[in-house]
Amino acid sequence: MSPTDAYAALVADATELSVLQSCGAVLGWDQQTYMPKGGGPFRGEQLSLLAKLCHAKATDLKIGERLAAVEGSDLVKDADSVEAANAREWRHGYDRATKLPSRLVEELARVTTAAQEAWVEAKGKSDFVSFRPHLEKILLLKREEASCLVPPGGVGTSKDQLYDALLDEYEPGCTTAELRPLFASLTAELVPFIKAIGESSKKPDESVLRREFPTDRQKWFAESTAAAFGFDFTAGRLDTTSHPFCSAFGPGDCRLTTRYNPRFFNECFFGVLHEAGHGLYEQGLPADKFGTPCGAYCSLGVHESQSRFWENLIGRGRPFWDHAFPRLQQAFPGVLPNVTADQWHFAVNAVKPSLIRVEADEATYNLHVAIRFELELALIGGELAVADLPAAWNDKYESALGIRPTTDAEGCLQDIHWSFGGFGYFPTYTLGNLHAAHYFAHMPDPTDAIRRGEFRDVLGWLRTNVHAHGRRYRSGELTRRATGQPLTAEAFSKSLKGKLGALYGV
Amino acid sequence: MSPTDAYAALVADATELSVLQSCGAVLGWDQQTYMPKGGGPFRGEQLSLLAKLCHAKATDLKIGERLAAVEGSDLVKDADSVEAANAREWRHGYDRATKLPSRLVEELARVTTAAQEAWVEAKGKSDFVSFRPHLEKILLLKREEASCLVPPGGVGTSKDQLYDALLDEYEPGCTTAELRPLFASLTAELVPFIKAIGESSKKPDESVLRREFPTDRQKWFAESTAAAFGFDFTAGRLDTTSHPFCSAFGPGDCRLTTRYNPRFFNECFFGVLHEAGHGLYEQGLPADKFGTPCGAYCSLGVHESQSRFWENLIGRGRPFWDHAFPRLQQAFPGVLPNVTADQWHFAVNAVKPSLIRVEADEATYNLHVAIRFELELALIGGELAVADLPAAWNDKYESALGIRPTTDAEGCLQDIHWSFGGFGYFPTYTLGNLHAAHYFAHMPDPTDAIRRGEFRDVLGWLRTNVHAHGRRYRSGELTRRATGQPLTAEAFSKSLKGKLGALYGV
Repeated sequence: MSPTDAYAALVADATELSVLQSCGAVLGWDQQTYMPKGGGPFRGEQLSLLAKLCHAKATDLKIGERLAAVEGSDLVKDADSVEAANAREWRHGYDRATKLPSRLVEELARVTTAAQEAWVEAKGKSDFVSFRPHLEKILLLKREEASCLVPPGGVGTSKDQLYDALLDEYEPGCTTAELRPLFASLTAELVPFIKAIGESSKKPDESVLRREFPTDRQKWFAESTAAAFGFDFTAGRLDTTSHPFCSAFGPGDCRLTTRYNPRFFNECFFGVLHEAGHGLYEQGLPADKFGTPCGAYCSLGVHESQSRFWENLIGRGRPFWDHAFPRLQQAFPGVLPNVTADQWHFAVNAVKPSLIRVEADEATYNLHVAIRFELELALIGGELAVADLPAAWNDKYESALGIRPTTDAEGCLQDIHWSFGGFGYFPTYTLGNLHAAHYFAHMPDPTDAIRRGEFRDVLGWLRTNVHAHGRRYRSGELTRRATGQPLTAEAFSKSLKGKLGALYGV
Repeated sequence: MSPTDAYAALVADATELSVLQSCGAVLGWDQQTYMPKGGGPFRGEQLSLLAKLCHAKATDLKIGERLAAVEGSDLVKDADSVEAANAREWRHGYDRATKLPSRLVEELARVTTAAQEAWVEAKGKSDFVSFRPHLEKILLLKREEASCLVPPGGVGTSKDQLYDALLDEYEPGCTTAELRPLFASLTAELVPFIKAIGESSKKPDESVLRREFPTDRQKWFAESTAAAFGFDFTAGRLDTTSHPFCSAFGPGDCRLTTRYNPRFFNECFFGVLHEAGHGLYEQGLPADKFGTPCGAYCSLGVHESQSRFWENLIGRGRPFWDHAFPRLQQAFPGVLPNVTADQWHFAVNAVKPSLIRVEADEATYNLHVAIRFELELALIGGELAVADLPAAWNDKYESALGIRPTTDAEGCLQDIHWSFGGFGYFPTYTLGNLHAAHYFAHMPDPTDAIRRGEFRDVLGWLRTNVHAHGRRYRSGELTRRATGQPLTAEAFSKSLKGKLGALYGV
């Protein structure tokens, strides 16, 4: 088979795999939005069949043969070409999929399915003991998975190498060695900053966020803001769910979800901005490359950067509310007559140490992630026993945020990730925050346009510099090319401290 | 391979095929309910991939080998056993799928896809000429398909044999020879009856159906009626669409759809009763046999019998409105204060010859089907050229119903079926009406229970005598076993003439 033919076959295979995966995405979306309760067991059978068919496609030995024909050929000589990038990513995915013995893959699927059910129950009862054996099994299997994936040749395997292998699933190319100082410096900077905020006499009046906001108007206001950002509702929609997410099926069809609290503004509004950020990224991926790596999102960190960009850097910025606050008052007549844009802006930027990551403010959020990063490293490295996790968790919260969970439901049981084996996933949340601020700091100053409610140039910059490339470059390289600078935490710290420092006078 | 092992493998294969088909059903439902416009092209790719994978599974040569091992074995000695019935239906489906050359299957798929698009446009412009070449191609291919399916051995092939082969896809075992006298006698009886109704001085006041019925209350009233019939909304739901349908994904998940007209009561309400009838059937199929013929609906005619049963025999019956009319008045306060249950019952049973099948009343409905049956036979038999179809159609409407279409959009372009190659489909609508009335006439008299709004025994009878058997018996045999009598048009005629005769005094 010629390299050209092999490459064309790889494109066709990959596209078919993506289309099949997207069928599962439709079923998953329906499961979380409209499916009646009684449909649960059968939906599980449907999704598991699709997963089986996808796995068979992803590990087809023909892929390996075709990759061998493409690699080293003239077709991929230029490492920056689309062809070379696709071949690189296909190799990455194929190796990950085929290095794992099928016994391990099946056991992980079985164990994590049971663990997710056990987690729901354990969290409901705040009963860590019942979840503990599941987590122990998962850890053993994830360590085995990581061992299979670590490049061979070294003597022994360090815990960083194991964690690198897990990270690599979500943020290809990112290493524990890079993350360690990043989290250390973030923690060192944020802990005293949050403490100072807590001691400040300036406080926002958060009660304005907890007035009556009729849900139909919340939907309208959130949708019209997402549309103003550039989300195309002829190629997407917004539905209701209990755990909001964004699911892009393929070109022309991207689904946002949210939930409504008629007595709390933030839940729907900032949730929709967040999911719309994910959606804008998906709508900006090159549709003509759908199914190949260059038509797919770069990494979870970059994906999260897009959601945090619109949610926080735009949606929680003072310039945005210049334009949006009068419209907000109009959208909810009689609800906010005696509130100013400044008061509102302060309220949506309230900082307060809290126990639940998904409810955390911009300043404390990364401490939640730093804690999970440290605990994951210790668990994977075998330095922390699962039995000691709750105490370790609580100690870290006390030390970083000055508050201690009283139940494991608001402690180490709060997040679903570990129950599905998602070790290495959490750091991408912080990477998202850092990339977002880095982009914002390096694009042409959008302040005036945002004040006028114009987002075309902001989105245009992201489209050109981030979205259009898909997975052509790894996240570090993508961001370096987009901004001319390697990613650091500097832009994030500066923007956070600038905004919150002014509000709280610290 | 032992017959037992072969049978077990056939069950596993068939179940996997059904699960995969059900994934397509979810995507199809979403396409008709929530999918944004921009998602259309990609949805086409998803559905076409699933169809390809399903076709490959359905025609896998292993099925033939396994069937050969099962057929003639002790396992299927008892022709009435579940095993024998499954083997019979697998053979039926496998032969249909494998007797057709793949060139023909692909050409039919290609031609009907284009034809459906052309039909939408042609209907919109009432432009038969643009649709004509598509229909000509389809007819050629369907004749070829029928020729491939006709049992070999005879000298030449009659037009009845060709039409039998097409009917067999929708109503296995049903023949043109049975249908011909059925439609002839129905036509002979209905034409003068409808004429007499038209000449009667008694007329319902249909304006009561066209008052203001707020759509949210329409939804509530229709849902609560469907729930009272026994539709399980923890295992199903009702959504909005433009062409209502019922789609059962699998055990525990059945989706009804409807559309709302705030100024016309019938559209949503009787539509929901109709779809709920389909849904009750699906919810009554034996879940433990899902994926095998004995867990699937018997035929399109039997499926339609269940929808028409609840829509017409229950929902348009006088006993039903004894219970439901006071509730209807409560559900729409101030809308029907000066209307009686008798007036309302007369209004929902109004008979009036009209051009559009899907809007036809119970009396004229079967004439619409009889016309299509005659035209299909003539088209398949080569006695009617496609070019002459519009005139033949219009003549038949004039002769049967006394009205003549002035455009082809309200004539031979009105239904989608021919554009997807669905020759042989229409007769199942009338078979549904006949089976429904036959069941109603032969079950223990439900009148008093219906008057009290109690439907448990009615549904129980259908569950036991119809639903529970799945496809274990062909439709004729199923109905004979259920009622002790072979299907005739007698019960239908009697019930229709009894009700309408009294209302119109004819």
